[in-house]
Amino acid sequence: MTTETSRPDDAFHVFDTTLRDGAQREGINLTVADKLTIARYLDEFGVGFIEGGWPGANPRDTEFFARAKAEVAFRNAQLVAFGATRRPGARAAEDPQVKALLDAGAPVVTLVAKAHDRHVELALRTTLDENVEMIRDTVTHLREQGRRVFVDCEHFFDGYRANPGYAKAVVRAAHESGADVVVLCDTNGGMLPAQIQAIVATVAADTGARLGIHAQDDTGCAVANTLAAVDAGATHVQCTANGYGERVGNANLFPVVAALELKYGMKVLPEGALREMTRVSHAVAEVVNLTPATHQPYVGVSAFAHKAGLHASAIKVDPDLYQHIDPELVGNRIRMLVSDMAGRASVELKGKELGVDLGGDRELIGRVVDRVKERELQGYTYEAADASFELLLRDELRGPEGEGQARRHFRTESWRAIVEDRPDGTHANEATVKVWAKGERIVATAEGNGPVNALDRALRVALERMYPELAKLELVDYKVRILEGKHGTSSTTRVLISTTDGDGEWSTVGVADNVIAASWQALEDAVTYGLLRAGIEPAE
Amino acid sequence: MTTETSRPDDAFHVFDTTLRDGAQREGINLTVADKLTIARYLDEFGVGFIEGGWPGANPRDTEFFARAKAEVAFRNAQLVAFGATRRPGARAAEDPQVKALLDAGAPVVTLVAKAHDRHVELALRTTLDENVEMIRDTVTHLREQGRRVFVDCEHFFDGYRANPGYAKAVVRAAHESGADVVVLCDTNGGMLPAQIQAIVATVAADTGARLGIHAQDDTGCAVANTLAAVDAGATHVQCTANGYGERVGNANLFPVVAALELKYGMKVLPEGALREMTRVSHAVAEVVNLTPATHQPYVGVSAFAHKAGLHASAIKVDPDLYQHIDPELVGNRIRMLVSDMAGRASVELKGKELGVDLGGDRELIGRVVDRVKERELQGYTYEAADASFELLLRDELRGPEGEGQARRHFRTESWRAIVEDRPDGTHANEATVKVWAKGERIVATAEGNGPVNALDRALRVALERMYPELAKLELVDYKVRILEGKHGTSSTTRVLISTTDGDGEWSTVGVADNVIAASWQALEDAVTYGLLRAGIEPAE
Repeated sequence: MTTETSRPDDAFHVFDTTLRDGAQREGINLTVADKLTIARYLDEFGVGFIEGGWPGANPRDTEFFARAKAEVAFRNAQLVAFGATRRPGARAAEDPQVKALLDAGAPVVTLVAKAHDRHVELALRTTLDENVEMIRDTVTHLREQGRRVFVDCEHFFDGYRANPGYAKAVVRAAHESGADVVVLCDTNGGMLPAQIQAIVATVAADTGARLGIHAQDDTGCAVANTLAAVDAGATHVQCTANGYGERVGNANLFPVVAALELKYGMKVLPEGALREMTRVSHAVAEVVNLTPATHQPYVGVSAFAHKAGLHASAIKVDPDLYQHIDPELVGNRIRMLVSDMAGRASVELKGKELGVDLGGDRELIGRVVDRVKERELQGYTYEAADASFELLLRDELRGPEGEGQARRHFRTESWRAIVEDRPDGTHANEATVKVWAKGERIVATAEGNGPVNALDRALRVALERMYPELAKLELVDYKVRILEGKHGTSSTTRVLISTTDGDGEWSTVGVADNVIAASWQALEDAVTYGLLRAGIEPAE
Repeated sequence: MTTETSRPDDAFHVFDTTLRDGAQREGINLTVADKLTIARYLDEFGVGFIEGGWPGANPRDTEFFARAKAEVAFRNAQLVAFGATRRPGARAAEDPQVKALLDAGAPVVTLVAKAHDRHVELALRTTLDENVEMIRDTVTHLREQGRRVFVDCEHFFDGYRANPGYAKAVVRAAHESGADVVVLCDTNGGMLPAQIQAIVATVAADTGARLGIHAQDDTGCAVANTLAAVDAGATHVQCTANGYGERVGNANLFPVVAALELKYGMKVLPEGALREMTRVSHAVAEVVNLTPATHQPYVGVSAFAHKAGLHASAIKVDPDLYQHIDPELVGNRIRMLVSDMAGRASVELKGKELGVDLGGDRELIGRVVDRVKERELQGYTYEAADASFELLLRDELRGPEGEGQARRHFRTESWRAIVEDRPDGTHANEATVKVWAKGERIVATAEGNGPVNALDRALRVALERMYPELAKLELVDYKVRILEGKHGTSSTTRVLISTTDGDGEWSTVGVADNVIAASWQALEDAVTYGLLRAGIEPAE
């Protein structure tokens, strides 16, 4: 991607804490390698600061800073070490935790400080004055050691409402002792935009400190709360990729920067970065091993997907009538969904999208809509399986009996999969398929590391002699969905498979009363579509 | 739940459109039965209005209104039919679409009207004046027929910014011809709270109409936008359960009503309803067949889950230090997550939660933390599998070699599952298990509608003679997660199983290189835990 090699303007900070606060999300468990990969994505995307973790508190984080310095050539971001103010009664210069922050060698340190009197007394167990002293002493010491310092005021908004005088005293102490930015944190996430805006404005006026905002999403307002703080004068926003974070999560980096650039007209990322946003969002999700949230603003696969027949027909007139921005600005794209709600207009547009011209043939389109309705009632979904939908279209293009007389590259007679758990704890997975291709009956058996993998291999073994192109195919993703979650293992199973031939990727769907049979259907479609992509027309 | 039988106060409207706009979400496909069930949940929850669909435009919606009238005794909600203003050039009294709205027999009708000049010309293809006439004529006609009328001004905010005079003329036309509420819709979802607040305030002042808000979440601000409109004087909020809706979705009903009741101190739901919110949210998700969003504000299973060791130790002091509301106010609960981040405090609290006293035994707790780390590296997750975690705890309680010498009700020697697709298209699923129990070797075979179901049955057949309690166990949920989405079928598979014995439900986890083997592990834990719940101590 095209990014300036220069650091982003310091006047406004896009500060990412995916690697520290984001990692607190339930279900996320990052290795050092994961953290390095995510750091590269975030730097490439162009955030100004990457908070890498808490060196000293967590060996994994200590290792991350060591390896990041050695292995990553940051183009846009500065690395930030997160830690706490010194212990009560000690001296910052002698506090081992503070020393670990310096040893991490990051140019910037974020210090978490208590700003809520109750937390000082109950959680920190010290006096209000000593807490202020801890902040002054620690900030001063880190500045003397040549570090840039940001101070996170934990529980600031709750603290301000309980004791505004003390909360502001904490901000002043951080500001006066040399912190560049004082970050007001809604740690428990209970605030609403109007409250945030009023408090940030007052604190800015009363303290003269440069302010930042750290919002959690417990009211569902983290993005709005972040923007409200910017409206009130904050020039530093702390976010996480995809909004990952403890409990509900943190302010989501992507809608925040998109709003700042596209709605506020600010420049907060390097040139061209925003167009990479969807890719970066999904890449980070892959690394943390979570399915990218389909309904995320701007970057979700559904963010510009249209289902309503009404909308679809209007979109044929002018796409801008039904989207708030051009999806390409954020690297996303408009999608027409096929579903029994979609109606003819969507099916026709979907056909175009797939390069299949339905030529406005009303009778044909009607037939396709009916087929889709009927199949979706059985549990199929074509919204997520373009290739299976195109195969359905091709069948219908061949006339009313399309499905019946569908021409295929091969026909399945039967198959069998066996999974065996041996007394020694190892597993044997074996599959046998009996298929017909080019008039010949072929029986093939293969092993795999699972029953579906064994079936996939057996099918290729059976067909590769007739269709050597199959060697290029690789199964890249496999999703299982139980359609009736309240019937345990006796419910309908839907399998979605993504396959690649090196040039492109396509998705196919299978639905059956068990996961193996559903997988087989999706495999059949995946192979058939792969052969069509290779330009091979069905033999029979 | 305890609800008043009287209708909620009309001064503020909680208007739900899950059944109409919410159904536009990608992946949702509602049957009439689904819609009736959801309507019952929403009425029980206490919304004032339930928009059921577009009678006439969609046979399913026509049927819904007929059956809702006949089958549902609404206690709190009024049913609303959604439709469009009459056709250009026609008369409302003769417009079949308008007639279908009346035929639906709902006491309230929501009319969608164009408020954006460009949409009138490009999508509606009529003149600006005729559009205003269509609104006056249709509202007047419906009022004459004794209906209460709300008017949805589609694309209002984009329209206002393009041509404020015309947008306000549309509001006036609706208001003057008898619409009780004029709803300003951010149809494309591109607005931010500050814009919404300013525009709603101006329109309220300039038109004198009672205003409502319909927000979409394309900027991630739908909840905040809804609250901003209320701040500016709107007294009618349109939302959907769990924020379901087209593209990114609609304003989420649950955080909106929670903010109004808990943050604004308004009474917008019947007494006690809010405490049912989590249950209602998950129940609706079940009906639409989507997994409840784990990170949803207030109602997500993670919404009050704490992972960070820091937080956990503070929560031992005082839970309110780290939560913005008491979870019980919304029917949710605090959860301590076990993960390698959690540290000792969480494990101890988690033990308490499960009724296993670790008695602050630091060495034991340390061992548990290590076991959890090691297992989570292999792909296990105990956050979602309390029963498997308790079995792990019990093992460790038995001393350092806990796992090795773990006492079990049975031991598995081996098992085998066979799935066969016959030429006639039917499937045979057969499983054989070889287990030891009470010193006896048992071999059992069973069939099922899938390989896991067959294994489940074979295991009970094998054990039921020795453990008749197993007859009560039922497998109620089954989830499959592919841990490395980019390795296709050769990736690690995690299976989560929920089992019930009629009194309670518990979750167990299995991880292996294939779905069948992972399922077997989870089944073993499920049965073992079920026997422990029945008070049966391991035999060997």
